[in-house]
Amino acid sequence: MVGFVGAGQLARMTASPAVALGVRLRLLAETADDPAAQVVPDVTVGDYRDLDTLRAFAAGCDVLTFDHEHVPTEHLQALEAEGVQVRPGSASLVHGQDKLVMRRRLQSIGVPVPRWLQVTSTGELEQFMAGCAGGAAVLKTARGGYDGKGVRVLRTAADVTDVADWFTGDAALLVEELVDFGRELSVVVARSPSGQAVAYPVVESVQVDGVCREVYAPAPGIAPSHALAAQEAALRIAQELQVTGLMAVELFDTTDGVVVNELALRPHNTGHWTIEGSVTSQFEQHLRAVLDLPLGSPTPVAAYAVMVNVLGADLADLYPAYLHCMARDPGLKIHVYGKAVRPGRKVGHVTVIGSDLGDLQGRARHAAAYLRGEIDE
Amino acid sequence: MVGFVGAGQLARMTASPAVALGVRLRLLAETADDPAAQVVPDVTVGDYRDLDTLRAFAAGCDVLTFDHEHVPTEHLQALEAEGVQVRPGSASLVHGQDKLVMRRRLQSIGVPVPRWLQVTSTGELEQFMAGCAGGAAVLKTARGGYDGKGVRVLRTAADVTDVADWFTGDAALLVEELVDFGRELSVVVARSPSGQAVAYPVVESVQVDGVCREVYAPAPGIAPSHALAAQEAALRIAQELQVTGLMAVELFDTTDGVVVNELALRPHNTGHWTIEGSVTSQFEQHLRAVLDLPLGSPTPVAAYAVMVNVLGADLADLYPAYLHCMARDPGLKIHVYGKAVRPGRKVGHVTVIGSDLGDLQGRARHAAAYLRGEIDE
Repeated sequence: MVGFVGAGQLARMTASPAVALGVRLRLLAETADDPAAQVVPDVTVGDYRDLDTLRAFAAGCDVLTFDHEHVPTEHLQALEAEGVQVRPGSASLVHGQDKLVMRRRLQSIGVPVPRWLQVTSTGELEQFMAGCAGGAAVLKTARGGYDGKGVRVLRTAADVTDVADWFTGDAALLVEELVDFGRELSVVVARSPSGQAVAYPVVESVQVDGVCREVYAPAPGIAPSHALAAQEAALRIAQELQVTGLMAVELFDTTDGVVVNELALRPHNTGHWTIEGSVTSQFEQHLRAVLDLPLGSPTPVAAYAVMVNVLGADLADLYPAYLHCMARDPGLKIHVYGKAVRPGRKVGHVTVIGSDLGDLQGRARHAAAYLRGEIDE
Repeated sequence: MVGFVGAGQLARMTASPAVALGVRLRLLAETADDPAAQVVPDVTVGDYRDLDTLRAFAAGCDVLTFDHEHVPTEHLQALEAEGVQVRPGSASLVHGQDKLVMRRRLQSIGVPVPRWLQVTSTGELEQFMAGCAGGAAVLKTARGGYDGKGVRVLRTAADVTDVADWFTGDAALLVEELVDFGRELSVVVARSPSGQAVAYPVVESVQVDGVCREVYAPAPGIAPSHALAAQEAALRIAQELQVTGLMAVELFDTTDGVVVNELALRPHNTGHWTIEGSVTSQFEQHLRAVLDLPLGSPTPVAAYAVMVNVLGADLADLYPAYLHCMARDPGLKIHVYGKAVRPGRKVGHVTVIGSDLGDLQGRARHAAAYLRGEIDE
């Protein structure tokens, strides 16, 4: 029995390989209509911020894992002290929860990261920015940011004034130089408690307003040395942090090499292509890793896979749009998350696999735009 | 909402694509621990032979479909008369339920079938056998047979004596000449209410004691004319019978061409390879067909797929065997059905895809034998 804290789309997409493997899932959901709670029979509705709720939920599970990184670290430490198998463990997971902890650790193990500094005042911020190329930097909250939230690019004195109120609360902040990158990359790796690890091919991700929009797997035309460096960095981070389960490492591809941007210690949007595009999907891999089963092959089954997110927009119900998209493209793989459609919210994704990258990009983008209601033909 | 009558492994394997498509499933299960009932939240436990139970179950469903063909035809007719969308409809489904109806119909539309005769006495049986090459024939019950049950090969007078008691009941019987075939083939086709239809590649199936053991997709070295004839026959049958959903057509490959053996109007064991081996699995295709969504591409994603069934034997619990099988072969795809293991029962299957048929056969057979407990290394 694998207990998932959180019942969003990641847990939902894990339900499919769990069926094949015969692994039973139990969910701690926020509501009975959460994406994964719609498709898994064994659901507890409760608050993941409450230790007693977590404790009762974990009692019947062989291992505890996560759909998101919002569970308080101290609760996980308490559960671990009581003997619960938390995977990834709190000491690993904190690197996906706290950007300050992550930056310090990556720096200490020699993984390339942007120049960064913890800041407690706008004065420190301005001083740091003065040393940045073009004066451009990125201010981040150490905790709680995702999909572009808690992240602000700063270029001018006016930008600094705009974020002055970020310094009035208790939230720890860090600033990083704005990396001059060619594109964003991601590597998904899995590591099991026994120490077995595998890396998926390096992919290119296209972000808009801090939200992943498209992924091309493998990253087209990437320099082999950069691809290898990215995979090596991800595997080394997984080993150093003693990660159990999946981890996605987001990187910047620069002329000087790859630089690590973010970590996520769970299945990741940049790994959704693996459902159709590789022998073992990231979701099956995560289950195998947290259960300490031998890991599956990450080998792609086609030359390219292209994934495009479907963000909520005008279509209140995606289902009628299926008719058009499916009829137009019988090779299209549509995934919906069972969420109410709200603007900008990730409500699904589409994937196509094949050998002609341009063709795949055109097809996936068209379908995502149609499902979003941006085009009507 | 798609209502499945029956909650065996076919409904279970349909749960995965239903998640991706956002199609909600409801099951009419025999017990709460049926294979599919373990993994689908919306389950009614009840008797599919009871019309009131079926009626209540169908009330909340957009369409009604099936995990097996055992629902009484008259009940389906009653539901159809009340406006329930039964897919496949009773008039189609009866061809998968009653071999006499099937044989008559296929003969009338000119599809090649073995020479056959309805028989009501051992005298008629002996007379038919006298006209068969080598005196060999196959006696079948018109209804209720599956996986080798209700089927007996007869070669001698003693064999006829052995089946004398088959003629004492009410069950309709038919006898067929024993076809001198090189191998058994299968074609899975899908047809939607709108009339769209697709055919998967012709596969070779290896049967042992009437139970499917192995499937090679596509059928290695098949004569292109035989492959085309098999697909054409299957598509024509689907059209003539107005099938909605999946249909598997099992055929004999003979020196004179292909001959239809059996029909199954549902996802089929000989189509399990499509989960990993083709762009659209037979289970997703069945959902799309019964919902009258455009059908997906049946194109294979690899040169070959090999599927081997795992039949229950010595291992009471398959899970510990995973460690060995997964460690030995990271490319192996294991599917378990959540059934209690009993000798001879289909409890799971394994699939591998790739380009070297011999390699795939070796790997899949090894894993199935290990999971069965026949080998220990």
